[in-house]
Amino acid sequence: MTTTIAPSPAAQWFSEHQPLLDHALAAIKSREYYSAYPESARSYGETAQADGKTKLEARLGKRFELAQPGTTGWIGAEKSPFGVPIGVTYPQIDVDQVIAAMQSAQRDWASASIGNRAGVCLEIVSRINKASFEMAFATMYTTGQAYMMAFQAGGPHAQDRALEAIAYAYDAMSDVPPFALWEKPQKNQPLRVEKRYRIVPRGIGLVIASSTFPNWNSYPGMFASLVTGNAVIIKPHPNAILPLAITVEIARATLAEAGFDPNVVMLAADVPDAPIAKTLVTRPEIAIIDFTGSSAFGDWLEKNATNASVFTEKAGVNAVVIDSTDDLAGLAKNLAMALSLYSGQMCTAPQNIFVPRGGITAGGTHVSFDDVLAAITKGVDDLLAAPERAVEVLGAIASDATVARIDAQAKSDGVALASKTLVHPQFPDARIRTPIIARLDAADQERYNGEMFGPIAFVIATDSTAQSLELATKSARACGAITAMLYSTDPAIVTKAEDFASDAGVSLAINLTGSLLVNQSAAFSDYHVSGANPAGNASLTDAAFVAGRFRITQTRTVVPGPASTS
Amino acid sequence: MTTTIAPSPAAQWFSEHQPLLDHALAAIKSREYYSAYPESARSYGETAQADGKTKLEARLGKRFELAQPGTTGWIGAEKSPFGVPIGVTYPQIDVDQVIAAMQSAQRDWASASIGNRAGVCLEIVSRINKASFEMAFATMYTTGQAYMMAFQAGGPHAQDRALEAIAYAYDAMSDVPPFALWEKPQKNQPLRVEKRYRIVPRGIGLVIASSTFPNWNSYPGMFASLVTGNAVIIKPHPNAILPLAITVEIARATLAEAGFDPNVVMLAADVPDAPIAKTLVTRPEIAIIDFTGSSAFGDWLEKNATNASVFTEKAGVNAVVIDSTDDLAGLAKNLAMALSLYSGQMCTAPQNIFVPRGGITAGGTHVSFDDVLAAITKGVDDLLAAPERAVEVLGAIASDATVARIDAQAKSDGVALASKTLVHPQFPDARIRTPIIARLDAADQERYNGEMFGPIAFVIATDSTAQSLELATKSARACGAITAMLYSTDPAIVTKAEDFASDAGVSLAINLTGSLLVNQSAAFSDYHVSGANPAGNASLTDAAFVAGRFRITQTRTVVPGPASTS
Repeated sequence: MTTTIAPSPAAQWFSEHQPLLDHALAAIKSREYYSAYPESARSYGETAQADGKTKLEARLGKRFELAQPGTTGWIGAEKSPFGVPIGVTYPQIDVDQVIAAMQSAQRDWASASIGNRAGVCLEIVSRINKASFEMAFATMYTTGQAYMMAFQAGGPHAQDRALEAIAYAYDAMSDVPPFALWEKPQKNQPLRVEKRYRIVPRGIGLVIASSTFPNWNSYPGMFASLVTGNAVIIKPHPNAILPLAITVEIARATLAEAGFDPNVVMLAADVPDAPIAKTLVTRPEIAIIDFTGSSAFGDWLEKNATNASVFTEKAGVNAVVIDSTDDLAGLAKNLAMALSLYSGQMCTAPQNIFVPRGGITAGGTHVSFDDVLAAITKGVDDLLAAPERAVEVLGAIASDATVARIDAQAKSDGVALASKTLVHPQFPDARIRTPIIARLDAADQERYNGEMFGPIAFVIATDSTAQSLELATKSARACGAITAMLYSTDPAIVTKAEDFASDAGVSLAINLTGSLLVNQSAAFSDYHVSGANPAGNASLTDAAFVAGRFRITQTRTVVPGPASTS
Repeated sequence: MTTTIAPSPAAQWFSEHQPLLDHALAAIKSREYYSAYPESARSYGETAQADGKTKLEARLGKRFELAQPGTTGWIGAEKSPFGVPIGVTYPQIDVDQVIAAMQSAQRDWASASIGNRAGVCLEIVSRINKASFEMAFATMYTTGQAYMMAFQAGGPHAQDRALEAIAYAYDAMSDVPPFALWEKPQKNQPLRVEKRYRIVPRGIGLVIASSTFPNWNSYPGMFASLVTGNAVIIKPHPNAILPLAITVEIARATLAEAGFDPNVVMLAADVPDAPIAKTLVTRPEIAIIDFTGSSAFGDWLEKNATNASVFTEKAGVNAVVIDSTDDLAGLAKNLAMALSLYSGQMCTAPQNIFVPRGGITAGGTHVSFDDVLAAITKGVDDLLAAPERAVEVLGAIASDATVARIDAQAKSDGVALASKTLVHPQFPDARIRTPIIARLDAADQERYNGEMFGPIAFVIATDSTAQSLELATKSARACGAITAMLYSTDPAIVTKAEDFASDAGVSLAINLTGSLLVNQSAAFSDYHVSGANPAGNASLTDAAFVAGRFRITQTRTVVPGPASTS
């Protein structure tokens, strides 16, 4: 036995990052504005961007060494939507060996104090923050996000979401005291029982990530599982492994530095030809699954992965209901941005825009359906007029399937705005498409009731705003939806829409005509996905997202009465 | 529109019961002793017991009118373990009509404020408390619990558990503010967004109750679902409907008095010949299921009721590890009570008692295995020597299956204490059996690895305490376990046992030789069931038990800058 002089790295990190955790704990209760990690690139120093780019590009074409046990080979088949040659290979895992290594690693991690686990997790996020520019290029090259979005959504915004999840889990665990002296009044002396409580993990947490937002959607589940004592295995989408491999590398190094077995966090990379998600999911050691991706696999998980707690974010069909507005130009501009940002490849992007066929009132005058449609298509045209600016909004198309969907719509009826192919000034092989907008009728449900992932939108003529709200709500209930938008100057309609949206479990934005987009979801304030419709069964982040990631065990010992204790 | 002068009944009830809620909120965080409803019968007034008995007996042999829609007939087949003729019939439900009525009733309930819903729930519990003696006899006659246990566990202890669940859910909902002003710093003016958040229910909550503890095990799920805005349908065990029918009657009357549709709470009674649980479970409108009962049905629910959040308490095999003691007489006395109370028909009762075959150290001297076994059997004999006292401990055997299990054990090897049939002085037809204890060897796993529900215990000879701990842990992991007990004077063994119990997800009690029994689980302090082994997937009550019973939806509206608001 040796006497410890200095506090452990984990304890030191906890002290260092505690002010940030305290801010986060306050923010998740007030839901007021908070951000721990600056979204302004300039805050990171003049050379940060160039340094990050150099670092990231030095990884391309090479093996991504992680020193993971159970490595049987090297695989990787990421294809950049920007046409950047990636050529990175990752450890191919032997599932048995990896799970055994994780179970062994988990023991010490689970028995560490909550504070020490939080300290390590906060330090991991802090180091990920320092790698934000490397992460920006890793995210950009693999997902097709334009640079600024890749930096923000793959960097500080994802890190804020991680901190939010850590704060929620820390809060939930802190509600369980380690000790209680339970004194029950009795006839003579009270019955005194000493009770000790422990937070115990559920098992191994599996995070299955998406191709479009690998970090932003994964960090909440990853850190919520980790800080509650579970080991975590990350299965990235085969086309967006790099950002999560960097994440895992940082996590493993930080764990090791704190004296923990790095196998508490492991990467499970795969390629499209040999997917491993189903193999992992059906392992009894997997106790928690966080999934972002298709409805088909998400639904399958919810029905079949019954040994695990399953948290899903799947697809949805987001609606906009236009009833009336004071600012049609602002509406068109805002909507154009919402439709174009990352080519509509956001789970929060609008798809179905419902407008009464008799037109609307805008700025006090009547505007016909056609003129509303024209305002929207003009908004998109104006936004994307200059290709060098357009590519910074659109990014690139992440998958062949999305290109095929755009092409199929181009051959269908009602095209009001054609999709154009743009050439990126820096990336000649980038796959860039502007949005396609079709004019439909309320009756064309088979055309618009279903997610058309990508830059595809429908402006749909309805009998009335009442019908618009009804169709939007029905679709959210049946197909799922994450966001909805309403434009109306009528308070009664706003109230009605609020009730409808709440019933349908969607997050409603009202009369956005400025810089705030319906697509955006702010950590600490916006509950991303309600869990109350088929778009997903969980929210990022609320108490329900974290509370089931640990269990509580207890010990009772009767202690002698007050007189005999001293 | 009329102006409301007086506060609503719900708001009044909230004010009235708030001190109690505040106590409960503090207790669930401190886990220190708290009880809102007196467990001492004398606190309820001199005539309370007689009045309750009269009231309850006036219900026997009659229809239990609940004025529920969708009533197609009258059913009921409760057989009292005490031989009391019950003969009560309950509404036979048309599932479609009942679910439609509940969905309609839920709208207003869901849109009530959290405080108003809490007020109604607290008032329901308060009225149930006033009916504690009626409930005592209803519980006693249907479950076979002796009178005092029926009063406490069916009355104040169950009511405390209800309050605990209300407090947890209230706490979780209170963490979501109804409103936030989100101000993001921008270059010029901050971006100001008004956010409104709503708590929305999941759907209909279904509570499937057990035959042995109808109230105690159901109230947490019932009130957690109710206070979070869900309508709740209660499906009692066909042999213990009466206590829950009274509960539903009180709930419906209270809801109606507060101006809510009483169909927010409904009863779904059935008979053994025509069970309806599976029909209810598979309805898509059922979003939450709370189940107490057999492992077979609980496991089926966990795997198949994937449309709902499922909370289960199933069977377990509870172990006692005897290593050493300072007080063998106290040990034997305590264990005798733990085995005999309600004839071992408690999910927390011990079954497998592991003792080293080489004996133990007791009070400083060596005691052989045989003498430890003899001390335990003598403890049971002494406790149950006087039949009129014995029946007040044992109660009656709730089911034929339990009698059959005792009889089967009597024909097997190793019987060390035979089960006796006792005659109850007041209830000649009561089915009363004393515990049977068999001596087994560690190798006889097929005999002791599996729940033997009822007054059946095994004293098992092991190679060592290390083996005892290993077997107990292995069995808890494989078969589930809720409690465990250790007797040891060796701090190293206590620490080891604590680690083992925590790994196995059981609640460990150490060296109980006095009045505290391992079977007892105190509201606000003991987490009943860890959810960390096959005995159940949920705990009564922790944050995980309540957090997923509601969802959060939100609305965002951009508001003008500070200058333009006044």
